[in-house]
Amino acid sequence: MLPIISVVGKSGSGKTTLLEKLIPEIKKRGYKVATVKHDAHRFDIDKPGKDTYRHFQAGADVTMIASKEKMAMIARTYGEEMPLDELVKKLPSMDLVLTEGYKSGDKPKIEVHRKELKRGLLCTAEELICVATNEELEINVPCFDINDARRIVDVIEDKFLK
Amino acid sequence: MLPIISVVGKSGSGKTTLLEKLIPEIKKRGYKVATVKHDAHRFDIDKPGKDTYRHFQAGADVTMIASKEKMAMIARTYGEEMPLDELVKKLPSMDLVLTEGYKSGDKPKIEVHRKELKRGLLCTAEELICVATNEELEINVPCFDINDARRIVDVIEDKFLK
Repeated sequence: MLPIISVVGKSGSGKTTLLEKLIPEIKKRGYKVATVKHDAHRFDIDKPGKDTYRHFQAGADVTMIASKEKMAMIARTYGEEMPLDELVKKLPSMDLVLTEGYKSGDKPKIEVHRKELKRGLLCTAEELICVATNEELEINVPCFDINDARRIVDVIEDKFLK
Repeated sequence: MLPIISVVGKSGSGKTTLLEKLIPEIKKRGYKVATVKHDAHRFDIDKPGKDTYRHFQAGADVTMIASKEKMAMIARTYGEEMPLDELVKKLPSMDLVLTEGYKSGDKPKIEVHRKELKRGLLCTAEELICVATNEELEINVPCFDINDARRIVDVIEDKFLK
């Protein structure tokens, strides 16, 4: 079973910044990792004027591009968000998936917490693998410094990759 | 068998512009169409600063994003371009695939020709379904005006979608 872990937190807590630290730490240890961003809004991943952008704007159901280094795909889903479990079926072989968001999903979670944002955590202790925080919390879950990617990846590796 | 047709032509001949006309004409007739762009260079489909861009820059092997309207995926292929026939296996159910480029591939082709670019066609008559051109050509293949998406889609529909 491919482990899927959701990095969640309030808006502005630093989810992307934490992921930017976790990913290289995971890669350094030799794992293949995919990320999935949950977007409540309309995202526009391509750049206006590019050929692929023009294909998709013209109404293509799916547009792909391939070069030696990368491939990319954009697909219309017509008002039905593709569920996380369907998305990960499209992945090539991976060791781990980290999501940014999906806080109402059923995957184990890492919550990013900042004292500046007040009002405690989004998740219950039962949902959490650990918390990345910049203040001490009274909670029965391992808490790590918000910048301590190494120790957070130690926990991920121990629980999901060994 | 999913029909795959390659729109080819010299640089500056107007391949993307023709595709922008073919796609809505195909959609209007009720077909699901995917496009695949062949990119000899390094493409950068995402926008600097976006969360997905940051995930991928941090080293994720694959990054996905999903909203209600769309899903997108960017995957590293590590110096090995994913062949067209592998790419199309990743598609959901489609009626037709149009590629931009892949002129050395084995798919049936539509060549876009402009008299301003001189020096005849890239393809042999045997490879071509038709030519979209802005000058008369002496060739034993149907030739259509470079802007006549309707008649070009008539040919595609007749040969591949009926």
